[in-house]
Amino acid sequence: MPISGVITVIFAIILARNVLKRPTGTPKMKEIGDIIFQGAWAFLKRQYSTIAMYSVGIAIVIGVLVGVLGHTGVESHGYNGFDVGWRTAIAFLVGAFCSGLAGFIGMYIAVKSNVRCAAAAQKNLTEAVNVALRGGAVSGFLITALSLIGVTVIFFAYGGNENPQIAPHLIVGFGFGASFVALFAQLGGGIYTKAADVGADLVGKIEAGIPEDDPRNPAVIADLVGDNVGDCAGRGADLFESTAAENIGAMILGIAVYLATENVAWVLFPLCVRGFGMIASMIGVMLVKAKENENAMNALNRGYFIAIALSVVGLAVTVYFMLDNWWLFCAGVVGIVASIVIVFVTQYYTESRYKPVRDIAEASKTGPATNIIMGLSVGYATTFATAIVIGVALLLAFWFGQQNDSLITALGLNLSPEAAKHAAGAFGTAVATMGMLMTCPYVLSMDTFGPITDNANGINEMAGAGPEIRRITDRLDAVGNTTKALTKGYAMVSAGLAAFLLFQAYLDRVSLIKFGTEGQYSVVNIAKIEVFVGALLAAMIVYLFSSWAIKAVGKTASKIIEEVRRQFRADPEILNPKDPEHPHQPDYGKAVDITTRAGLREMIAPGLLPVLGPIVIGVFFRFIPGYDAAMVVAAVLMVGTIAGIMLASFMNNAGGAWDNAKKMIEDDQLKDDKGVVLGKGTPTHAAAVVGDTVGDPLKDTAGPSLHVLVKLLATVTLVMCPLFIVT
Amino acid sequence: MPISGVITVIFAIILARNVLKRPTGTPKMKEIGDIIFQGAWAFLKRQYSTIAMYSVGIAIVIGVLVGVLGHTGVESHGYNGFDVGWRTAIAFLVGAFCSGLAGFIGMYIAVKSNVRCAAAAQKNLTEAVNVALRGGAVSGFLITALSLIGVTVIFFAYGGNENPQIAPHLIVGFGFGASFVALFAQLGGGIYTKAADVGADLVGKIEAGIPEDDPRNPAVIADLVGDNVGDCAGRGADLFESTAAENIGAMILGIAVYLATENVAWVLFPLCVRGFGMIASMIGVMLVKAKENENAMNALNRGYFIAIALSVVGLAVTVYFMLDNWWLFCAGVVGIVASIVIVFVTQYYTESRYKPVRDIAEASKTGPATNIIMGLSVGYATTFATAIVIGVALLLAFWFGQQNDSLITALGLNLSPEAAKHAAGAFGTAVATMGMLMTCPYVLSMDTFGPITDNANGINEMAGAGPEIRRITDRLDAVGNTTKALTKGYAMVSAGLAAFLLFQAYLDRVSLIKFGTEGQYSVVNIAKIEVFVGALLAAMIVYLFSSWAIKAVGKTASKIIEEVRRQFRADPEILNPKDPEHPHQPDYGKAVDITTRAGLREMIAPGLLPVLGPIVIGVFFRFIPGYDAAMVVAAVLMVGTIAGIMLASFMNNAGGAWDNAKKMIEDDQLKDDKGVVLGKGTPTHAAAVVGDTVGDPLKDTAGPSLHVLVKLLATVTLVMCPLFIVT
Repeated sequence: MPISGVITVIFAIILARNVLKRPTGTPKMKEIGDIIFQGAWAFLKRQYSTIAMYSVGIAIVIGVLVGVLGHTGVESHGYNGFDVGWRTAIAFLVGAFCSGLAGFIGMYIAVKSNVRCAAAAQKNLTEAVNVALRGGAVSGFLITALSLIGVTVIFFAYGGNENPQIAPHLIVGFGFGASFVALFAQLGGGIYTKAADVGADLVGKIEAGIPEDDPRNPAVIADLVGDNVGDCAGRGADLFESTAAENIGAMILGIAVYLATENVAWVLFPLCVRGFGMIASMIGVMLVKAKENENAMNALNRGYFIAIALSVVGLAVTVYFMLDNWWLFCAGVVGIVASIVIVFVTQYYTESRYKPVRDIAEASKTGPATNIIMGLSVGYATTFATAIVIGVALLLAFWFGQQNDSLITALGLNLSPEAAKHAAGAFGTAVATMGMLMTCPYVLSMDTFGPITDNANGINEMAGAGPEIRRITDRLDAVGNTTKALTKGYAMVSAGLAAFLLFQAYLDRVSLIKFGTEGQYSVVNIAKIEVFVGALLAAMIVYLFSSWAIKAVGKTASKIIEEVRRQFRADPEILNPKDPEHPHQPDYGKAVDITTRAGLREMIAPGLLPVLGPIVIGVFFRFIPGYDAAMVVAAVLMVGTIAGIMLASFMNNAGGAWDNAKKMIEDDQLKDDKGVVLGKGTPTHAAAVVGDTVGDPLKDTAGPSLHVLVKLLATVTLVMCPLFIVT
Repeated sequence: MPISGVITVIFAIILARNVLKRPTGTPKMKEIGDIIFQGAWAFLKRQYSTIAMYSVGIAIVIGVLVGVLGHTGVESHGYNGFDVGWRTAIAFLVGAFCSGLAGFIGMYIAVKSNVRCAAAAQKNLTEAVNVALRGGAVSGFLITALSLIGVTVIFFAYGGNENPQIAPHLIVGFGFGASFVALFAQLGGGIYTKAADVGADLVGKIEAGIPEDDPRNPAVIADLVGDNVGDCAGRGADLFESTAAENIGAMILGIAVYLATENVAWVLFPLCVRGFGMIASMIGVMLVKAKENENAMNALNRGYFIAIALSVVGLAVTVYFMLDNWWLFCAGVVGIVASIVIVFVTQYYTESRYKPVRDIAEASKTGPATNIIMGLSVGYATTFATAIVIGVALLLAFWFGQQNDSLITALGLNLSPEAAKHAAGAFGTAVATMGMLMTCPYVLSMDTFGPITDNANGINEMAGAGPEIRRITDRLDAVGNTTKALTKGYAMVSAGLAAFLLFQAYLDRVSLIKFGTEGQYSVVNIAKIEVFVGALLAAMIVYLFSSWAIKAVGKTASKIIEEVRRQFRADPEILNPKDPEHPHQPDYGKAVDITTRAGLREMIAPGLLPVLGPIVIGVFFRFIPGYDAAMVVAAVLMVGTIAGIMLASFMNNAGGAWDNAKKMIEDDQLKDDKGVVLGKGTPTHAAAVVGDTVGDPLKDTAGPSLHVLVKLLATVTLVMCPLFIVT
């Protein structure tokens, strides 16, 4: 699988060269593209400086705590607490660094692709789709390759060759580092992008009465920068983290089988499946060819289905050569099917073709209040599909895992019969997660497609392109909204599916530390008072985090609004130039700078909450005699996961539905009783705009951050569990 | 304690006579009062006919299922499945009937008090407060007395005298019946009241431009009726259910101690504490005397503190005579303190004196979208206080329960040492719940104070009373908003506190059925795949229920809007009479009728969801070999409780905060940068109205229904648990 990693990197470089050598359009367009790039670069540089500072602090804390606590379950293999401590801290830093690198790459290529996509749209749709998808693919593939290479390298660096049963325990820090950075990247980017969006809209569209993306608006560049730092850098870090953490979790589960069978394939299986998935996704991307007159979504879907079909083949091959166990193949297929189902479910809830979005648009006729009420109702209802898809997939994958008599027999050599059966089932869910994540590079490419087309649209608007060209980028922008929503659904279900394997990894590690062997700690009894209270607090943390994240957007937006108003007051010629040929330019840089500073300040508190919350709860109960703190933390992890997935489902889907209800009205698709079109400029449209604005911080700040939060809960508890155990 | 029940009934009758003999004001006022009464009566009659139909159906199902399943854990005492089946079904019907009766009484007295309060306001504030509080007290006291008498009578009717260890198991149906009716009452009433409110506002205030409560609006009577059927009948049924279910749950926990000590005081303790609480509340109500110039809230608070002080004394007396155990007294005090804390926390989040409401008002300056975003943020943040209060109270009460060596020794006669220690702790949380619910009659009186003053205000407006009188009822109306919010906080925390004792009752019952003895079934292992999936589905049910409840309000409101528009079109003279002395009256009855029918139709689906959901999940897993269905249902109960409390906390508090942010702007308390007041008629006010409207279905329909849902989950699983167990 290092080979497939290398192939992927080469592929990404070829793609990148292909994209970068394309024309950048008129000088005006190039100039705008450069301004966006500088803004995004400045933000990321500052953001990652802040994150790096905190990362080093956390790494030291981890090293010292794990080192001092001393019992880590691997003493018998010659590692004392100190050995484990510094290795975990280094792994944390490497994970954090790789995640940051992934974010930078995602942003860099995406920004460079924006202006080229805008230029390509001046030729035709096919070219524009090509640029946007390939630009997205560069970051998608580099990010997944980086995750694969990172985990593989650190695995072997920590002695994975001689001691495959120890190394996964040493590299858990990598997952924690990745998710730590991902949370801040997603949160900081999300706050930035939505604050800029809300701020630009409120003061531009509503107060000054100028259209979206108008060059007279000082916040317009900040808005375009936001799309890149939020959707590209943030989502890139998110999925880097997912693939890394779930790989490591699956490898930890594989140890138990390895110990029984001495076949290292069980530990390496996740890495190989990932390799095949990358190749399948690669072919899928290359085969996308949009016809001039079709909906670009159809072209993307064709590529997606090719990637899925090839993934199934790749899964079969890996299972045949490594595990020779067809029940596990079925478990993997469960994951792949779940990823397809959630894509369709998300489309149902967020596309204007279907009832939910139409209901919201209808409700806008009676004003913003009914629009919001209907959106809340639709958003809450989406939890049904999310819970059913995750629940059914988990039950099926677990069942397939358990059908393996040979696997259970092997596990039974070291475990009790019941524990062996449970471990086999958990391994089934791990394989399902791996199956689902095979197409991750393709999905990530589609996701980045979104902000690239969004920016291309904005650049064309600012550069004053003709209506024909704008129509092309407008259409692509709508497709981009859908792909962004799909990715969120995908990330959410993968978080749910992965949850069980991460729980298992946590319990195994607690068992190892407490009893010196795995499979002895398997009960999380929520009927115990402290465990129930822990679960209650976990659900609360999810809500409190959302509250702070949403509030951060509001606070940052108010800073931008003040700045834009100040600029308009200071120089009235920005809005109404005396000489229209040479208008006074607003100070875009100042707006970008203010957003950056305010956004980063607001990122700290919500970012630290889910990191410190479980640790504080665990340490509190550890020092009260009679309580089982490790079990409390397990409940925090499990119920926090449930609460996070449900709330994220509401936020992502409600936000997407509100957005598209507004778009539907702007496309003149809504009529009143008498058949008169209710389009832009009507009170109905104004009501729909309110819904869209409310949905923004939900779907682009709090919601996507919740996916990361869920996985961060898993990695932080996994790394910190020695703190909660009294041996 | 039957004596205190009788005393309470006599007290309520005296109060009722006192209220009813007061003057009803001008003939115009009497006429309006009569119309409201007829509308409320018509709604309740239809609503309870529907509920009765479903109740009989469910009773038959319960009787047959429990009868046929045959193993109920009490066979050894000569009861076969059939004996238990019909007794449970009858208890269900009695509980359902009593709950319905409580709702009717609450509504009847409240409606009769409205007009008398309106008339009293023409004299002075003191009189108006007296009428409103005493009117509220009649229903508050009758409802709690009914609960006490109902549980006591059915306890002794089912042989509580000879077999105190059996009777609580036979009367669980009573709690289920009560919560079943309470859910429908709260939901149907909540849908009605908010649909009428939203509908009347949207078409009256916004489309036709007439003020609130204007007699020209055909929906105005439906709006006033709604306050009575939602807040009085609905909340009455809710708290009837709470007191009944928690009494029964506490009695079941007491059985274990009785079996060891043969002292029946442990089973009867909850009933006695309740009796003292009623007397304490009675004295509190009688001592309320509002001074003419003070904030009426202060007078109510004085009465509340008197009731609390007397409750502590009553608790001490009961503990001394019945249990002689001062650790349990401490546990009871924990419950009382929790009830005080939550009252202050609710005030912080929902009163315009404090930061959260001010933040929302500030955010309204930039429009409805920022108002909504800030409200969401505030609402999510309130889960922090809710979770901490419930979590700390549970841990402390459990700990106090465990400090009792004599109790643990006694329990240890029949239980393992660990089970004995756990049972003692759970009994501590039961005593805390009892302590908290002692002041329930007083809180309920304050709650009903709200809709009475709201209606009095409306009646005075419609009858064209002078500004001086309106100022009095307006002030009382604002106090009523606060008391309504407090009651919701109180109901929410009591649901959380009671949760643990209800879980324990469920587990004890499963143990009895499965193993023939209590305390053997104590592990709810959420790390098992099916238990985790059950927990996920439970959280989903809470969201889906909220979605449907909110949507029901929207659908019903749209029916009202259509009807009002139709009336305005059919007779333009309703709005603009040619002869102002004899205006054309709108058809209030038609609007009431349409709201009633639409509201009841929309009530069915969300109402059945939490009843059938746990049963379907439990039965599904029961028939798949290898799964522990009883444990899955336990997780549904526990995680459903957590999810429900968190979501209710958000909905109730966000709704209250939005409401008061609007009120704050209407009271001219918000200024812009230059010090200019932003009052009624400004865009800022319009934005705040949007927030208020969004909050309405959250705080008055979905939120309060969630409290009932949480307890319904407990009673339905308690009664139906034989279905989930394979013996």
